[in-house]
Amino acid sequence: MSPDRPLQDVSQAVELVRRHVQPGATVEVGLSDALFRTLAEPVFCDVDYPPFTRSLLDGYAVQASDVVSADGAPASPAAVLDVVGQIAAGAVAAGEVGPGQAMQINTGAPIPPGADAVVPVEDTQPADDGRAVRVLRGAQKGESITARGTYVTAGREVLLPGTWISPLEIGVAATAGATRVRVYRRPTVAIVVTGDELVDVDQVPRGAQIRNSNEHILDALVRQSHCKPVRLGVVSDDRAAIRAKIEAALACDVLCITGGVSMGEFDFVPEVLSELGATLHVHKMATKPGRPTIFATTPTGRAVFALPGNPISAFVGFHLLVSVALARLQGRQPAQHREIVATLRGPVPAPGDRRSFQPARAWLTAQGRWEAEPLSWHGSGDPFGMATANALVMRPAGSPPADAGDEVMIILVTHKG
Amino acid sequence: MSPDRPLQDVSQAVELVRRHVQPGATVEVGLSDALFRTLAEPVFCDVDYPPFTRSLLDGYAVQASDVVSADGAPASPAAVLDVVGQIAAGAVAAGEVGPGQAMQINTGAPIPPGADAVVPVEDTQPADDGRAVRVLRGAQKGESITARGTYVTAGREVLLPGTWISPLEIGVAATAGATRVRVYRRPTVAIVVTGDELVDVDQVPRGAQIRNSNEHILDALVRQSHCKPVRLGVVSDDRAAIRAKIEAALACDVLCITGGVSMGEFDFVPEVLSELGATLHVHKMATKPGRPTIFATTPTGRAVFALPGNPISAFVGFHLLVSVALARLQGRQPAQHREIVATLRGPVPAPGDRRSFQPARAWLTAQGRWEAEPLSWHGSGDPFGMATANALVMRPAGSPPADAGDEVMIILVTHKG
Repeated sequence: MSPDRPLQDVSQAVELVRRHVQPGATVEVGLSDALFRTLAEPVFCDVDYPPFTRSLLDGYAVQASDVVSADGAPASPAAVLDVVGQIAAGAVAAGEVGPGQAMQINTGAPIPPGADAVVPVEDTQPADDGRAVRVLRGAQKGESITARGTYVTAGREVLLPGTWISPLEIGVAATAGATRVRVYRRPTVAIVVTGDELVDVDQVPRGAQIRNSNEHILDALVRQSHCKPVRLGVVSDDRAAIRAKIEAALACDVLCITGGVSMGEFDFVPEVLSELGATLHVHKMATKPGRPTIFATTPTGRAVFALPGNPISAFVGFHLLVSVALARLQGRQPAQHREIVATLRGPVPAPGDRRSFQPARAWLTAQGRWEAEPLSWHGSGDPFGMATANALVMRPAGSPPADAGDEVMIILVTHKG
Repeated sequence: MSPDRPLQDVSQAVELVRRHVQPGATVEVGLSDALFRTLAEPVFCDVDYPPFTRSLLDGYAVQASDVVSADGAPASPAAVLDVVGQIAAGAVAAGEVGPGQAMQINTGAPIPPGADAVVPVEDTQPADDGRAVRVLRGAQKGESITARGTYVTAGREVLLPGTWISPLEIGVAATAGATRVRVYRRPTVAIVVTGDELVDVDQVPRGAQIRNSNEHILDALVRQSHCKPVRLGVVSDDRAAIRAKIEAALACDVLCITGGVSMGEFDFVPEVLSELGATLHVHKMATKPGRPTIFATTPTGRAVFALPGNPISAFVGFHLLVSVALARLQGRQPAQHREIVATLRGPVPAPGDRRSFQPARAWLTAQGRWEAEPLSWHGSGDPFGMATANALVMRPAGSPPADAGDEVMIILVTHKG
């Protein structure tokens, strides 16, 4: 590796991830397990929908000609119709509706033979002790009736492959009779943390030690991305140990390894990746933080991300690159442009010669616009200043400092609600 | 219940939910289980952070006075210093750095005694076969050094109660040594679906039957809200059966029951709720769809939502009201204003006398603005037209029709990634 290798622009790096990571394997699952996955095969509806001609509302099924005058206006005096029965949702009418007759009907219940319109209950009055009904307005033929198959006819494709399954798509699949669907498998993501200085969270760091927070952050990020984390623990700054751990990690779809990628003498990760025949597509990014970020693919098609050992730099690298790979593996359309315009509520320093990402707390105003308050943050070594951040203020290299009131682009980094 | 009872404005209804639903019980969990929950007690950091004075980058620890001239400019000729050792992250220096000396140091490693600045490796050249280093620029005292406790001193509160725990907060808690944290319990949500017309998804509907999609949609919505669904199945349109089911459901924190709330003769839910001593806060909302929506609380403090039997109306009611209750129970700050300005990419009809919600597909443009394409949708009886929706176009009652190019308010209803 050469320290002179040029820094990669973020959008080029994202493009390289998109190009080199392909959708993963698929699996058939029960409908409930399909939530937050991507459909790999279409869903067809096996029946007409609605499956029968039905009432849109609670009211009376009538013959429209009984309740209008010849000119289409309400009958005058108001029509009084004999009530010949009632139909609840789920029931089928015992008889039919003839001229001068009405049948009480509930929302969703099948229209009885003979009727061709439904008058809402609000536009009626009971008459003759409930044995009749006075209809206070006219009705068009077909009014408040939904014919069988109006929305979908049997055999139609109702969900396309590539659809992300949210609760609404669960509802569509359930209505279509799809008890099982084929979706993309949840990728497994190995998490390896390098560094002789790391101790567990339940230890008190002594001397030159610090706590291993990276493993916890990455575990959470992987779960937030609907993937399965596989924690492989801490590996010391030893070339053979790192190689063994990386080889083990390649049983997973993706490897995230933190530390060991800057220019220090003990940074073996890039060398080991080369030894294993991996192709390095991204080596250093023109970002601050997050410069020493590697994206590589192995001969067996695994994606490897080596992120900076600094937790915040690792977090930024995950959002910029790893999240794109995890979306691709799950068969998602390339993620939509995630930068949003926001008005600053405080100053942001000039970024210098690399694109900068600054933690911020962003919110929507009552007018539906975004505002962003930069957090008090001491730089990428400071994990505490990132607490409660839900956005990164993104500033292009070479920009001037920005101040309260300026419009900037932000990236939302977490679902807060 | 009176059919003349006035329709409730949505924002009043939301306010009633906020007022009558209080944060739930709390529980202590391992850090990993705290993701996507709300902190109920503060997290304190048990150590200084950083826990020792450390290097910000890879380079050489030096005495600043060795590498600058008296006027603070780089030493001329460039200083050549003896390399007296190296310190990796996790190691403590064996000796100290004296005048004319330098020690190679890695990012995050402790500053050796005697040194008071770090020069980045990029600004140096090896000399004397690596036994010495040529320093090409000057350095300020303290440069690229982070003193122990710069970010946090031991005992400081680093996460406040009420904080939503995303991956960043997991990182903060891990750094602070919090292996267990106290969070709000995940609420349990009973799901009951009423209707004699309902059959399971794996059945083919006959006669007046339709499939029970509501249970699946609600199950998914509850999971999306980080709560635990408890499916209690379908209950027929029978007063005693509905009462028994509602009583059983009140073991959960929240009950969502669909159907049985419009004005038909077979709609027993409001009556049963009154019998059980529940207070009805919201009975009908001035929304389209979603008018027959009930919010009630029981004498034992359970929140009950009776939603329309129509799946899409139930979906809208869940987003407008139930989601607010679930956030409150989980100790969340009142949800931020979730309406966003978007530019329409197609027409939306006039809403009439109730606030209307129309499914749409929304996306961010490269300029960071939202656009929304209304979906082809036949109205609230049509579950298929909602597929792939990620937003609802919200139009105030009495608005004129809106067209492509108009700015409207939208509500995002699902995370698409």
